[in-house]
Amino acid sequence: MSLIVQKFGGSSVADAASIRRVAQRIAATRRAGHDVVVVVSAMGDTTDELLDLANQVVEGHPAPRELDMLLTSGERISMALLAMAIKGLGLEARSYTGSQAGMITDERHGKARILEVAPRRIQEAIADGAIAIVAGFQGFNRETGDITTLGRGGSDTTAVALAAAMDAEVCEIYTDVDGIFTADPRVVPKAHKVDRITTEEMVELAAAGAKVLYIRAVEFARRHGVRIHVRSSFSDLEGTIVTNRTVPAEGETVEEPVVAGVATDLSESKITIVGVPDVPGKAAQIFTIVADTLANIDMIVQNVSTTRSGETDISFTLAKSDVPAVLAALEAARAEVGFAELLHDDDIAKVSVVGAGMRSSAGVSAKLFTALYEAGVNMEMISTSEIRISVVTRASAAATAARAIHAAFGLDGEADAVVYAGTGR
Amino acid sequence: MSLIVQKFGGSSVADAASIRRVAQRIAATRRAGHDVVVVVSAMGDTTDELLDLANQVVEGHPAPRELDMLLTSGERISMALLAMAIKGLGLEARSYTGSQAGMITDERHGKARILEVAPRRIQEAIADGAIAIVAGFQGFNRETGDITTLGRGGSDTTAVALAAAMDAEVCEIYTDVDGIFTADPRVVPKAHKVDRITTEEMVELAAAGAKVLYIRAVEFARRHGVRIHVRSSFSDLEGTIVTNRTVPAEGETVEEPVVAGVATDLSESKITIVGVPDVPGKAAQIFTIVADTLANIDMIVQNVSTTRSGETDISFTLAKSDVPAVLAALEAARAEVGFAELLHDDDIAKVSVVGAGMRSSAGVSAKLFTALYEAGVNMEMISTSEIRISVVTRASAAATAARAIHAAFGLDGEADAVVYAGTGR
Repeated sequence: MSLIVQKFGGSSVADAASIRRVAQRIAATRRAGHDVVVVVSAMGDTTDELLDLANQVVEGHPAPRELDMLLTSGERISMALLAMAIKGLGLEARSYTGSQAGMITDERHGKARILEVAPRRIQEAIADGAIAIVAGFQGFNRETGDITTLGRGGSDTTAVALAAAMDAEVCEIYTDVDGIFTADPRVVPKAHKVDRITTEEMVELAAAGAKVLYIRAVEFARRHGVRIHVRSSFSDLEGTIVTNRTVPAEGETVEEPVVAGVATDLSESKITIVGVPDVPGKAAQIFTIVADTLANIDMIVQNVSTTRSGETDISFTLAKSDVPAVLAALEAARAEVGFAELLHDDDIAKVSVVGAGMRSSAGVSAKLFTALYEAGVNMEMISTSEIRISVVTRASAAATAARAIHAAFGLDGEADAVVYAGTGR
Repeated sequence: MSLIVQKFGGSSVADAASIRRVAQRIAATRRAGHDVVVVVSAMGDTTDELLDLANQVVEGHPAPRELDMLLTSGERISMALLAMAIKGLGLEARSYTGSQAGMITDERHGKARILEVAPRRIQEAIADGAIAIVAGFQGFNRETGDITTLGRGGSDTTAVALAAAMDAEVCEIYTDVDGIFTADPRVVPKAHKVDRITTEEMVELAAAGAKVLYIRAVEFARRHGVRIHVRSSFSDLEGTIVTNRTVPAEGETVEEPVVAGVATDLSESKITIVGVPDVPGKAAQIFTIVADTLANIDMIVQNVSTTRSGETDISFTLAKSDVPAVLAALEAARAEVGFAELLHDDDIAKVSVVGAGMRSSAGVSAKLFTALYEAGVNMEMISTSEIRISVVTRASAAATAARAIHAAFGLDGEADAVVYAGTGR
């Protein structure tokens, strides 16, 4: 029998009725003759409610070890309820915590990395003919014996890691949209679902701000060759297959589109350090200071300054939530670094175009820049990877930019797409 | 440094403000120079809310293994929040699940028995100078690797078991009353707090329906010589010390009262099996049928029948919630057992008087029966142990009976007591 891993996010198990509906779907998969391992997130807003409680009992940041202990109660509730509901349908089901499922991580509370997956108990459950329900988002550290959480997108990562460890046929990620779209339909009404996408493209799309799949999970899938199927928990439609396969199967169209999708990201801010002495080692010094705040920076551009001789400006983008800590750290090091001024700008958007076909296709940048110019959109920063080009624009210009790019690369579908929202952890 | 185990029930940690208050109390104990291990229940109504959810996702009884997985999320939340709150006061605190704390049980989900306590991690935390916060009510089974719960009163049992395993100076059970009272003040306004009581008396009082301490915990304390201090989480007053010690210390009053307290229990029903053939082995047959339903029966009386020759009536009391299952099991065996009729009566009360002094004091039964007769209370069943006499009366007569007994044995205090409510699990 083939093994299928199914992951359901918080919105799919938000209340008792949803849990019963998900149980029906899992039971149908089992009755169709598959072995099934289910990964589940906490119900709906549980995580936010628990965080609220933590903020009520303590000023400032709660202890990370205790925060992980607190938050992992969320999946414990949803997985036990889901197992009960499946058993109520006459099938055997057993729930397992991250530690029972063998999700061994490092000790970094709140953002642990998976070191090893040892799913002995899950394999035993499957061998017994049971459906195994595994808590997403959580693991444990062998040295300390403590409970850890994997951070944002952790449940996707749990699902992909289990699929890899157990050599599953497919890892189905259930969400509230029909699959991966060529753009966010709220921004680009002509966006349409894609049937297939490569993990490489998906990594870039996730990094560029697409919220349907988390980048860590896709990276994990790419490294371990896990086939992901992103699909709706509200319908039986085929969604989007995300795989490493680039050699087309017999009968498949060989011609791949140059561009797979357009992503828009409004979650970042820009910081510009003005008047940095143009001497070797300054960039290293600055980004060490930034890294010490644990902020994740994204795009970096060093502008050659024309007005001040021997000085340069450095701009970078980062998550809006990281701005206060980074500004404080840089301000504290102003004398040491010797810069003139520190600016920040929350009012930016990052618009990206991603496609494996860009590698072999000339003129992609030219086409992109022309489309934006004709749409009257100003580019403030540009950053390129092998299969991605990102530009920073005013936040207010983001939708115009995305629509112009979507049309320019021939992605516009026949009809307007349905609007979707991002998923939780 | 002396080690103190402190147990806080659900009503003591019902919300963020209560958790902060409890944290202050724990911190004060630590700062007074004691090592502290804390056992905590789930917040307020968490358990009931989780049970509600379980009933919404599945018809009938939820799977016991999954129910334990679900319910144990409750302590996970309260213990993590409490640890955060204590750390917020500048002291080191670490929370531990039942399995991390080494509470090893048998595999009976929902009513597991503790087989062994292996608190290695708790000892390490204490050695590090930290306050250890342990989830009450939960354990794990070594063979299956599964999470278990200890059933009603489980958190008291966790606290006493840890106190025994770690040789604590005292196990403080915090509750919403000032200690153990000579009777339930809601029933007997002249009830007063006792300063000391023996574990033996406390076992009988708990068995007789007193709700402040659970019988399993007291039995555990009696067997292992744990000193319990029952006290209020709302004041610093001394509560009631529960110990095995019967030899009075120098300076203590040698004269012990004959009776320690009066307990009233309205939670039981009476079942009467009419017309049982009076042949050897019938009682064994009947109570095997009853035991197979897992019901706990309390008082048993076999009435000599005068109206039918060769037949007898058997009456017993049991928890109201167990009545349907027991009636069904007995009805199914009617032909096999050969009885005439099955009656049940929910409208009863059990009133008990408990005291170690009863052993050496003649005429206790006579005084009790006289008091009830003078108060106009009819006795329907009588059952005695070495240090307890229980009588079954109409439910409506329970308060009158308790007050009459309380007065007859000289327990009435100077002033009326404050009213208290029972505690949770």
